[in-house]
Amino acid sequence: MIEKSVCIVGLGLMGGSLVRALKGQVKWLIGVDRHASTRQLALSDGVVDTVTDDLSSGVSGADLIILATPVQTILQILRDLPQLRPDGCMVMDMGSTKEEICEAMAALPGSFAAIGGHPMCGKETAGYHASDADLFREQTFILSRNGRTTHQIEELSLSIIEHVGAHSMFLSADEHDQIVAVASHLPYVISATLMHRASEMGDDRVWSVSASGFRDTSRLAGSDPRMMLEILLTNRKAILSQLNQYNQELAEVSELLEGGNKAALAAWLAEAQQQHSVYHRQKMDSS
Amino acid sequence: MIEKSVCIVGLGLMGGSLVRALKGQVKWLIGVDRHASTRQLALSDGVVDTVTDDLSSGVSGADLIILATPVQTILQILRDLPQLRPDGCMVMDMGSTKEEICEAMAALPGSFAAIGGHPMCGKETAGYHASDADLFREQTFILSRNGRTTHQIEELSLSIIEHVGAHSMFLSADEHDQIVAVASHLPYVISATLMHRASEMGDDRVWSVSASGFRDTSRLAGSDPRMMLEILLTNRKAILSQLNQYNQELAEVSELLEGGNKAALAAWLAEAQQQHSVYHRQKMDSS
Repeated sequence: MIEKSVCIVGLGLMGGSLVRALKGQVKWLIGVDRHASTRQLALSDGVVDTVTDDLSSGVSGADLIILATPVQTILQILRDLPQLRPDGCMVMDMGSTKEEICEAMAALPGSFAAIGGHPMCGKETAGYHASDADLFREQTFILSRNGRTTHQIEELSLSIIEHVGAHSMFLSADEHDQIVAVASHLPYVISATLMHRASEMGDDRVWSVSASGFRDTSRLAGSDPRMMLEILLTNRKAILSQLNQYNQELAEVSELLEGGNKAALAAWLAEAQQQHSVYHRQKMDSS
Repeated sequence: MIEKSVCIVGLGLMGGSLVRALKGQVKWLIGVDRHASTRQLALSDGVVDTVTDDLSSGVSGADLIILATPVQTILQILRDLPQLRPDGCMVMDMGSTKEEICEAMAALPGSFAAIGGHPMCGKETAGYHASDADLFREQTFILSRNGRTTHQIEELSLSIIEHVGAHSMFLSADEHDQIVAVASHLPYVISATLMHRASEMGDDRVWSVSASGFRDTSRLAGSDPRMMLEILLTNRKAILSQLNQYNQELAEVSELLEGGNKAALAAWLAEAQQQHSVYHRQKMDSS
């Protein structure tokens, strides 16, 4: 039991899953969401003690505020917090990029304690109706310290991570954004580009012919475009650097194929399979 | 019941799944495989009536030969067939590219009847141990006519497709190779390139941070490199053309991101989601 009152702002996939996972495990749980239907559902599901669409009243009595909205909204709320809570409080977020958010946290007055958070899980379906109490179970939950991180907020966030069944991992905001650019944002961009390419072929038979390989490789193209836009824009530099290196790698393999360089191409393909098995083994070992 | 003797050459994932799916539904089933352990398993599983590692004796009495080996081996066997079966017979294949194979089929003597085949399904695990009687169920099975396609081989291949629970689709060899380059080979190359990029980052934390998005987008990187090499080399022109267009699309989205062109980027992302839902709906409607 966490003896704190917690306010979760945004009851979409992430915030909704968090209230489900924390149900009955915190002293008092307040949900803030702008959609009336979501507020009503969260209340009738019994996963929050109270709901409101008014950010100001939602955050007013909370010991801890957890921001679970898209990144730009998190940044806006962090700018407004000193006015909303002149007395200060503890803050954590669940946004997908960390550098801008941790900078905004570090700029909060000294009465605030703040830590960046990012659970590495998701679905291509957004919204409260897709939320799931087990979303975080056995997943990596990244924490990013910044100029406002205290021992107390660190302990509290670790306790929340433990309660939802995730594994914590500390990364600086910069490390987070670099690594996540490869592990999450690059896969999204190449998947969406595949979807564009296949559609622009203008031949509907491509859908009948496509099987599980196409389905999996193109799955992320179905992600919420509003959320992805904010992620891409707030992690622009790291993603552009990865896209640039990805493009070079793709140009190299195209050259091997164009030149009919069988031995080098065979080695490159075998390397990809070998790397895939290293990755797969590490995931198995850590789960 | 198919009143023919059928010889399946290669009892890997495809051939193994085919003998399992056809078990008890053909008059006589002969399996040819170079691995003693596979032959023994297929026999003890009771999915073939007889097995051999000798191609010549395997194909000798068969009404229909189905070639289920990698593409280069299919091409080699097609060249040898006039000597192996001077009397002619019916031939079908299950190779992943069709233009070279259909050309080789068209070059067979007039005593042969032949049709190109390609079931659009697979797993990243190769080999007989991964084979599955339900692999073809509800999947698209492409047939490619060529200069040696007769009414009889067409009817027989349609009957086999029906018996294994798949849906037939006729495509010319050229159409097949163009469409499959987008639906299957391009996804493989971009997936393998992602695996290279992530590995070459040289930071093992990328594996802990990666979640289901990375897992699905990189899944095809685990494909059998020997099989993929033959696919890439026998469908080189179509794949290079697709890679070239894919690269252009990727460069365009990089430019939108680099220039911070929020409106155009938002439209591009929304389009990808929209295309994904069109694709998804078409797959649902056809299954």
